[in-house]
Parts: sequence; C-alpha cells; structure tokens
Amino acid sequence: MYSKLRIGVIGTGKIGRLHLESVINHISQGVVVQVADPFIDQKMIDWLEERGVSNVTKEPEELIRNSGVDAVMICSPTDKHAEQIVMSAQEGKHIFCEKPVDFDLQRIVETLKIVKDSGVKFQIGFNRRFDHNFRRIRDVVESGKIGEPHIVKISSRDPAPPPMGYVRSSGGLFMDMMIHDFDMIRFLVGENPVSIFAKGGVLIEPEIGKVGDVDTAVVTMDFPNGSLGIIDNSRQAVYGYDQRAEVFGSKGCCQTENDTDTRVSVTTAEGVSTDVPPNFFLERYFWAYVDEMRGFVQAVLDDREPSPGLEDAIIPVIMAKAAMESFKSGAPVRLEDILAKKQYAFLFDN
Amino acid sequence: MYSKLRIGVIGTGKIGRLHLESVINHISQGVVVQVADPFIDQKMIDWLEERGVSNVTKEPEELIRNSGVDAVMICSPTDKHAEQIVMSAQEGKHIFCEKPVDFDLQRIVETLKIVKDSGVKFQIGFNRRFDHNFRRIRDVVESGKIGEPHIVKISSRDPAPPPMGYVRSSGGLFMDMMIHDFDMIRFLVGENPVSIFAKGGVLIEPEIGKVGDVDTAVVTMDFPNGSLGIIDNSRQAVYGYDQRAEVFGSKGCCQTENDTDTRVSVTTAEGVSTDVPPNFFLERYFWAYVDEMRGFVQAVLDDREPSPGLEDAIIPVIMAKAAMESFKSGAPVRLEDILAKKQYAFLFDN
Amino acid sequence: MYSKLRIGVIGTGKIGRLHLESVINHISQGVVVQVADPFIDQKMIDWLEERGVSNVTKEPEELIRNSGVDAVMICSPTDKHAEQIVMSAQEGKHIFCEKPVDFDLQRIVETLKIVKDSGVKFQIGFNRRFDHNFRRIRDVVESGKIGEPHIVKISSRDPAPPPMGYVRSSGGLFMDMMIHDFDMIRFLVGENPVSIFAKGGVLIEPEIGKVGDVDTAVVTMDFPNGSLGIIDNSRQAVYGYDQRAEVFGSKGCCQTENDTDTRVSVTTAEGVSTDVPPNFFLERYFWAYVDEMRGFVQAVLDDREPSPGLEDAIIPVIMAKAAMESFKSGAPVRLEDILAKKQYAFLFDN
Amino acid sequence: MYSKLRIGVIGTGKIGRLHLESVINHISQGVVVQVADPFIDQKMIDWLEERGVSNVTKEPEELIRNSGVDAVMICSPTDKHAEQIVMSAQEGKHIFCEKPVDFDLQRIVETLKIVKDSGVKFQIGFNRRFDHNFRRIRDVVESGKIGEPHIVKISSRDPAPPPMGYVRSSGGLFMDMMIHDFDMIRFLVGENPVSIFAKGGVLIEPEIGKVGDVDTAVVTMDFPNGSLGIIDNSRQAVYGYDQRAEVFGSKGCCQTENDTDTRVSVTTAEGVSTDVPPNFFLERYFWAYVDEMRGFVQAVLDDREPSPGLEDAIIPVIMAKAAMESFKSGAPVRLEDILAKKQYAFLFDN
Repeated sequence: MYSKLRIGVIGTGKIGRLHLESVINHISQGVVVQVADPFIDQKMIDWLEERGVSNVTKEPEELIRNSGVDAVMICSPTDKHAEQIVMSAQEGKHIFCEKPVDFDLQRIVETLKIVKDSGVKFQIGFNRRFDHNFRRIRDVVESGKIGEPHIVKISSRDPAPPPMGYVRSSGGLFMDMMIHDFDMIRFLVGENPVSIFAKGGVLIEPEIGKVGDVDTAVVTMDFPNGSLGIIDNSRQAVYGYDQRAEVFGSKGCCQTENDTDTRVSVTTAEGVSTDVPPNFFLERYFWAYVDEMRGFVQAVLDDREPSPGLEDAIIPVIMAKAAMESFKSGAPVRLEDILAKKQYAFLFDN
Repeated sequence: MYSKLRIGVIGTGKIGRLHLESVINHISQGVVVQVADPFIDQKMIDWLEERGVSNVTKEPEELIRNSGVDAVMICSPTDKHAEQIVMSAQEGKHIFCEKPVDFDLQRIVETLKIVKDSGVKFQIGFNRRFDHNFRRIRDVVESGKIGEPHIVKISSRDPAPPPMGYVRSSGGLFMDMMIHDFDMIRFLVGENPVSIFAKGGVLIEPEIGKVGDVDTAVVTMDFPNGSLGIIDNSRQAVYGYDQRAEVFGSKGCCQTENDTDTRVSVTTAEGVSTDVPPNFFLERYFWAYVDEMRGFVQAVLDDREPSPGLEDAIIPVIMAKAAMESFKSGAPVRLEDILAKKQYAFLFDN
Repeated sequence: MYSKLRIGVIGTGKIGRLHLESVINHISQGVVVQVADPFIDQKMIDWLEERGVSNVTKEPEELIRNSGVDAVMICSPTDKHAEQIVMSAQEGKHIFCEKPVDFDLQRIVETLKIVKDSGVKFQIGFNRRFDHNFRRIRDVVESGKIGEPHIVKISSRDPAPPPMGYVRSSGGLFMDMMIHDFDMIRFLVGENPVSIFAKGGVLIEPEIGKVGDVDTAVVTMDFPNGSLGIIDNSRQAVYGYDQRAEVFGSKGCCQTENDTDTRVSVTTAEGVSTDVPPNFFLERYFWAYVDEMRGFVQAVLDDREPSPGLEDAIIPVIMAKAAMESFKSGAPVRLEDILAKKQYAFLFDN
Repeated sequence: MYSKLRIGVIGTGKIGRLHLESVINHISQGVVVQVADPFIDQKMIDWLEERGVSNVTKEPEELIRNSGVDAVMICSPTDKHAEQIVMSAQEGKHIFCEKPVDFDLQRIVETLKIVKDSGVKFQIGFNRRFDHNFRRIRDVVESGKIGEPHIVKISSRDPAPPPMGYVRSSGGLFMDMMIHDFDMIRFLVGENPVSIFAKGGVLIEPEIGKVGDVDTAVVTMDFPNGSLGIIDNSRQAVYGYDQRAEVFGSKGCCQTENDTDTRVSVTTAEGVSTDVPPNFFLERYFWAYVDEMRGFVQAVLDDREPSPGLEDAIIPVIMAKAAMESFKSGAPVRLEDILAKKQYAFLFDN
C-alpha cells in the first residue's frame, strides 16, 4: 500500500505553484504524482522536473481520471471549478478547491450536493483559517478563556486596488475580498450570522465606483447568540497588507496585531519607528498556505472531514451577496431566511 | 483688574469635586471664589476651607447672581442644568456645563439658543476630547499626515454595568455611554454623520433588557465625504475600562492603545504578562479633566469660543436618539434630515 | 493633637518647589507650616501666600528650631545638607534630605551616625524608588514570581549633557548621575554589591574628558548570592530621557519600557511611529516625587522607618567612589572590604 | 557549463540535515550532488533519495576529491573540521564550515592560513548574522541613522542547560555559547574589541560549577573608538530562547525584541498575556540558516568573499579564551595585544 497521499494538481498559476511548493518542500505525507495545465510552459515543466515531478499533462480530465491519483487540487480559473469538482467527485477523488466554487449560487449548491452525495472529502481554499494569528484567536475562543463572544471585529485592508479588469469580473469587493473575512468571522465566532448590514464608499479609485463597486466598506452583522460582528475593508492601505482581528467576550478580549518582518525598533529624536506589515498575501500567509495543504492531506489520510468544508464553500458567498444587496438597498438583509431554504438543508444534516 | 478667572462651582458631587481640585491644584489662571450646593455637607465645607475657599452657599441662584463671579461651572444634577444655564447666560456669566444639557431635545435647543443670543462663552463637558491619546489622534488627522479619513473606529467599554436605578433614568446605553463616543467620532473626523445604523444586544445583564435597553451595541455611520464610522460599546469589559480609537486614512492609520498603570512586563514560562487598562474614568481621564477645565478657563480669558461648544452640546444627543430609533426599527436613520430643520440653524450660522 | 504632619521646607529651588507642590496639592496628611530660604524672592513668597503658606523666613536655623515644625525637608544646596541634618536631628525633627548628604564620605558617616543616635526618622531623596515602573519590578521580584535574581540590568541615559560648570562640581558621572542607578540596583536586588568594575568613555563632549570625567559608562557588579548587575549611562540620548530596567531570574524576567506621553501609533508607508520617552526627570518622575513625599509623611505618622533611609544615603556614594576608582585603575574594586570597616557598623546593627 | 553551485555536504546530523533542507527546498542556485557521512543510516539515505540525492558515501575524503563538487559544507564533528578544511582547500573546493574551526587556537591559525593561501572561498557558520532582526540592526547602524555606536548590549539566554557531557567537552559557556555573541557584537559594531572583562556565576546547575564552568555570565568590553559593549548569557531562561540586542548611538538607539509565534494578546481580568519567545535555535533561526546558506552559495557564484569569513572564524575564539582568562583572574584582558601578534597578520592584510 502507498503510505502517502498521491496528489494531482490542476493549474500552475501563482496559487497552483504555491501549493506545489508546499507539498514538495514541506508536506512529507503527500506526494505530487501528476500536474495538469492546458497552458503550462516549458519553464514550469523544467521546474517540476527538477523537483522530481515528470508526469505533466495538458488535460485536467486525464489527471482526474488517473487511477494513481488519490486527491485533486483544483487551482484552475474559477469558471472551471464546478465541472472539475463534479468530475473529481464522480471519480471518487478527494478534492481541494480554491475559492470560490463558482460565482453562481445555484450552481454552487448543485455542485456541492454532488460532492456531499459522493462521500469524497472536500476542502475549500480559505487559507486564512490556518494563519498562526487567527488560528490562535480561534483556539483561545474555543478554550473558553475569554468566555462567550460579544463583539467580533475584523480589519482587512489590501495594499493597493487590483487592476480594473479584475474589479469588473471579480464580483466586487464583497465577493472577492470581504469573502475571506466573512469566512473568518464565522470561523472565529463558530456561528453563521442572522443578518447583515453593509455601508460602502468610493474613496480611493473613482473608476471602481463607475462599475458599481466600492473600495471601502464596513459591514455589521449579528449572530444567533446575540453577539455582534464588524468587518471593515479597504482596497488601499498605503502602509501594507493590514490584517487584524479581535474577539471581545464575557471574560476577556483576544486580538492580533499585524505580523512584521522584524521586531526591531529605531528610536531617534523624531520618534520610535517599527516595521509596517508585510506587503501582501504571499508574504503574510505563506505558512498558512502550507498548513492549509497539510491540513487537507492529513484529514484525508486520517479519513476525517477536512475543514473548511462544504458549508464554508457556500455561506461566505451568500454573505457577500447579502452584503451587496444591503449596500444597494440601504437596509439590513436577513441571512436566516435564505439559509432556511430547503435547497441548503443538505449542508446542515450531519 | 482681576487677572484670574473668578469661578463659581455649582454642585460638589464626584464630578464637581474633581473640577474643584483641578482649578485649585492645577490651574493657576483660575480661582474658585464661591461654591454652591443645596446638599453640601460639613466635610466638604472643611475640605474647601482648607484650600482657601470659604464662600459657600446652599443657593445656586445666589452664586449665579454674584457679581464677583466671572464663570459658572454647572455640576448639578441634569434636571437643573437648563435653568442654571439660562440664568447664568442672563447674568452674563460664562458657562461650563456637564453633559447633557437636558434629556429633552426641544429644551436643549431653546436653552442653547438663549446662550447663543447672550454671547457668553459656553463649554460642554465632553472631557475625552482633552485626553492625551485622543487629542493626539485628532492632531495627527488635522496635520494631514494620514490623509483623508476613510474608516474611523472607536471601542469604548465600561468595566461593569451601572446600577439598575441608573440604567432606568439615564436614557439608556446610547444616551449615557455611547454619547461620549458620538462626540468623539465627530471630533476625530471633524464632521457630523449623515446616517446611523445601530445593532444592540443584551448579553451581560438580562435586567437591562427588561427595561428596553441594551448592554452591548455596535453603531455604524457615514460622513459627508463618504468616510465610514464604527463604534462598539459594552457595559462590561472584565479587564477594565477599554478606550481605544483608530482613524484609517488615505495616507496611513493612527490608533491608540489603552493607557496602563506601568510599562512593566513579566515573562515566565506561562507567557508575557502586562498591565490591563486602568479601572475607570477617574483614573483614565484624570488629566483630561484637568485639561478640559484649563481649556475653558484659558478660552474665556483669551475671549475665544471654548470647544466643545454649543453644537457639540446637542448633536451627540441627536445621534443617541437616532441610534435608539435605528436599534428599535432595525433600519438606518438619516441625521442629515434632522439637522436640516430650521430650529438647528442657529448652531451653524457662524 | 495635630493630626497632620507639620512640615518645614528649606530651599525653594526647582526641587524644593516641586516638593512644596506635592505636599500642598497631593498629600492631605501633611501641611507646610514654614518655608526657609536665604535667597527667596517675592514671586515665590506670593506663590506661597496664594497657597496659604505665609510663614516664610530667610533663616533655615529659625525653621529648624520652630517648635511647630515636626519634620524638615532639606532642599538646600548640598554643602548645607550635613549641618542642617545634624541641627534637625538635635532638635528632634524628622528629616527628609535631598541626595547626597555630602560629597565627603567621612562627613556623611559622622552625620548619619548622629541621626541614628538621635532616633529621628530619616529619608534620603532617591525618588526613583517610588516610580510606578521600578516599584512594580521590585514588587514582582519580592513576590518571588521570577524567582532568584540572576542578572539585573539598568539603562539610564540623560537627554543632554549638563553645563560644564555642573560637571566640574558634581563629582562626575558616577557621583551625580549613576548614583541613582547604584541605589536602584540595590533596591531591585535587595542586596549590596560585592565588587564593581567600571568602564567609561568620552564620546559626546570632549570638554567632559578634559576635567577627568566620562560621558558614557558601563559598570558591572556582583552580589553576595552570585547574581550579576549591569548599569549603562550616557549623558546624551538624543531621543529623550531613557530609563529602563530588567531583572532576569530563575523563574522569569521582569522589565520595564520607557513611559511615553501617549499610546498612539501612526502608520504610514514610511513605518509605524510611536512616542519617544518624556524629555527629562520632572516629566518622567512627577508622580514618583509625589509618592516619595507621601511615603515620608506616612512613615513618620505611622512611626515607621522611612525608606530609603540611612544605609541608602551612604552606600550609593561608596559605590560611586568605587566606580571612579575602578575606572581610573582599570581593575575591579571590592566593596565588601570597605563596608566591613568598623565605621559603617552602625548602619547594619538593627 | 553548470549554472548552479554543486554542493557536497559532509555530516548528516541535526545541523547537516538542516543545511541539506535549505539547499534542496529554498536555494535554487545550489544543488546537492553528494552527501558524505561515515555513520549515515538507512532512514537518512531514503530521505535523501526521495529528494533526488542518490550519491551518498561514507567517505568524506571521496566527496572532497569529487571533481563534480564545487563547494563543501563541513557539518562533521568539530575534531574533523580542520583536516577537512585543509583537504578541501587543497582540492580547490570552496568551504562552508560550522563553527568552530577547532578548539586549539594555533591549529585554527594554521588551518585558516592554508585556506587564505589557497584562494578558495571560506564561510564560517555564524548563522545569527543572517537573522532578520540582527541583520536589520546592522543595516541601521551602517546606514548612519543612529550615528556612531556608543553602547552595545546583547542578551542571549538558552532555554535550558545542555547535558553535562556537552558542558565537559564544549569548552565552556564562553566558548560554546557566548562565542555567538562575541561574533554578533563585532558584527553590530563593525570593530574588534580592545579589552574584555568577564564575571560569571553558578546560579542554575551546581554540576556546571564543579567542572570549572559558569552558567551565568556578564562580559563587558570596549572598542577602538571608545564605545562599550555588554553581553549577558544564561544557560536557563525558563520562558524560552531569549535573543535580544540594542545599539545605542550618538543619534539614536536601535533594538530588537524577541520573535514570537503569534502577535496575539489575550486580555482578561488577570492581565494582558502575549507569547514567550520560540523555544530554541531551530525555531528562532530557521530562516537565518536558510539565508546563511543562500549567502554562501551566492557569494561563491558571484566570486565574492563570503561573510562571515576567515577573521570571523578566529576572533570570537580569541575573545572566548580572553573571557575565560578574565573570569579566572578577576582582571580585564587586553585583546589588542593578542591580535597584534605576527601570526594573525594574514587575517588583516587585505
């Protein structure tokens, strides 16, 4: 019997390559047995060769049907996710998929239903759950050390706006950026929100406003136990990638500052100066990506459900859509009503 | 000519006594010439005597009419504020008044209109504007160092809920507690909000819920320039009096941590331990109270309008009422519409 | 019976005035009944008058002999300290004296011997023992939380060199500046050192070197239990008054950072900036001076020995002289041998 | 032509394996072509095989003579270092060698002389120079931002004493532990010290004292420009691996705190709690080891002298011996006199 998880990776873009590096360099329980990418170039083929990965194909379908592959990592463009998930589930392959499953809610539901029925393991790529700081907060909350959560706050700000081309196709700030924070707040609180209220503005880049999107946003929500949540996002923190969270509870408060490159301070007559946060997600979440993949591999090997899983693949999308609706209507939107619909029942019947 | 401001103090409760100490010990440009309190006790009389203040009366009216008094500090119960303000204005005395002017909005408007017409100086007791940390944030915002404000966040949490008797008569969390933060957010941003949305919960003390109030609340708002504001309040931070703020802007971010008694850390195998914030407002804002009074005295001596002034005496009250309304209706409330009303015009016609 | 300690203050220079303010404003258990200063000016007389102190004399001897005075605070120039201490002791007055008692070691011994024999209370002005940060470290050490001290480190750096006139008459860096740290290290460890080794340099102001003094110095020492101490001093920290300490022990480590005016940070693309320490001792140690005086007043009223007391008035002077000797010889100097001398026996026979 | 540096690694113990991982996972410009270890086991052989390294030998000499090897990484036991260095130099191989070159000073001199004459590149394994925090301090010093160094302080404390077997053969605290700090202080200041004074104690483990060693030590030194240095070491910081440094200069101060696993704080009624430092050198200096190796590989490829080099391989050893001598004699020891000897001249004649 093969003692390591045999992994096939679809897609060798920035994120695909990152996961390849994680498995090859840092995850001894997994091995990359095949890579598929319709647009793979020679440089990438050489890079893989050097690392002992010689089985490369331009046909994702071939990889999914490869009987020597135990699990598929789907790092292809979003519009391919759903079909590759479905095919992988049908072939009995465990699935790691980058978020989101799809932009269309109905299609996500149908896709995940198939995964659920197939019984394969499924993990969605919300990497921040594996970040050392946020995971610690979650651990502290779960330990009961700070009691019941009362107020949860997340600040999440990018260093610079994305290109307008991306903005036009990404689904907007709530869908492409705050979706990470929607997942994070559920992770920290351990509950889904009841209702959402969103305020947004165009304070940085007027072009963003012209396509109906915002570049600055504040969203509040409440949870079933009555606790309250706040997320603020900005497309441009000139000082770097600002990623902080705080859970205030009945017995205390747990919060994280930003990581920094060094712990050095320089004191001169002008003041005390320390480091800004690292510039962007690859620096900030490097080890989170590694641990995300390690978590997936280990869960499959242990025959446990990976986390974040099916529910986590869809609820942040629903939250993003609700936020967009609230922003447009100026009124709060109830999630409870949406989630009570019959089509979502399969997510919760464990 | 008398070179110091001759001050009469009405009320010798906790806050009255605090202001008396400030003037006597720390403010060389002012002198307490008379104290009035219908319920003054011998201990207080002795305490004043020792500090050279022998002119004590049980009649506030006598003090207000005393021609040797230049300025009146009104530290009486709230239900006396309006009439004492009016009488002081009519007597041409400058006025420092503890907040709020009154619980009734119409009465506040009428009272402040009289003050405005009289031409006397007027300062309202929002002491936190004089806090070293918050004032520094304001200075940084004004300096332009962090550019235009985009997101403003205030956390303000009391160490323990007040007695139920207080809760019943105080006007509720939005009126007695968050009102400070409503003033602070205006101070930090330099604008009045356009609309307000409030969420609240009863997570600490069920009795508070029974009288229609909340013990935990999150309020979001937007400002004319499109920037967004967030205030969170809790009646019980078990670790002390939590008072923090952050202004995120187009060129950077300015924030304050809590004050602490010491800067000492203790590192053992269990972790690194540092101080919690000071327990409550007298410890946290001691020097802010002194500087508040110094600011009033100096403004009067310099013949400048003191700040916070008339506008600041009423807008936070309007915000508190709007927040309560939003909390009850579940929908945002527009302040702009309220402030556009004719009756408020006098506040803005400088 | 008079329930407050009746205090006479000799000297109305910077430090005398500071103590006067402390007693008048902050110490309800004490009252200033007389002030003496041969060179007092009208402005000071008016200042005292305003605060209810009308008994002013130019004759310190008159004050010392005043039967209405319980305790004398000696804030006169150093060359008057010894004779005023002796006279006060002879008159049965309790004594607070600014450091040092004298520059001449033999004279200090003789003076303190007289105080000891007289039975009056005596406190020497090492104000830093009352600082919130250093006192907390001492409390932590005493609590046993960090176990036995192994390594003790003090950094103490002035914002700018004193005038050369002061340098010439002060006894030099070890005597006028590090003497505070010599006392502090004894306070933190709770022991007197066994031997001392000093290195110094002239890195800031060549003129200081020309009079045989140093402007930068590092002194190491060991204590009877084998623990090791380090003090570093500089005459010029361009960023302010740098005052830090650390005690590393068998069970942990306790350290203090500098106080700062605010807890505000400003984050821009250039970095995160926070406050430098306050500029000098009056800002940094304001409350320490108040608490020092309160400690003296309370100890006398409680009929307890004040601390720092007789032993503390002389051992730091011996350490300073030993450090100077070590610096000059290039070899360590043993304090143990000095302290074993018969003349010091009275300090230790409690 | 081969575009990558072809590396042979001698020794597969803890540190050898660490360097192997660095080159394989993180350093694209280098490739491991052979590994030698007389005592290599099957598990290690498999581990290497999986990573594409199949050329394994039990004969270091074979590796050194392998014409397909450009550079040798010597990670064997210390008593083999000198002969393997000499042989590598004779074979024209570039050399990375773990510290120390040898315990015998004369042998180090002779070995390094041969390296110097051979013209091969040589780097000694003082990995801390590549640590993000310490390197930043050095960069700040070099930038001139804090002016001329006046006082340099290093705290370096292990989490627990080593086994007594190690203590007996390691050369003692000054040689096996403080040697890193001797190198670091030279790195930070950019100079060699003039004289050294050492104090030590046995405060943790009496057995250590029985073999003539210390477990706690403080060393002071001065530099040619008059600046002063302080190093403190402890064999046991119960809270983890304490690694801090501070350079105080004419224009400011630069210091580093410890790294921590997270930036999370937990605030409860008991206090604010944050992380202790990581437990030991593999966690603390992981990336420093990677960067050390990357620095060596890049320097060889660029035909530059690697750093730390020959001089750095010997002067910390001389400092350690001087510290031991000072500790035993109780007097300072001059390094200047030692370094002026003719036999060291080759180190400085560039």
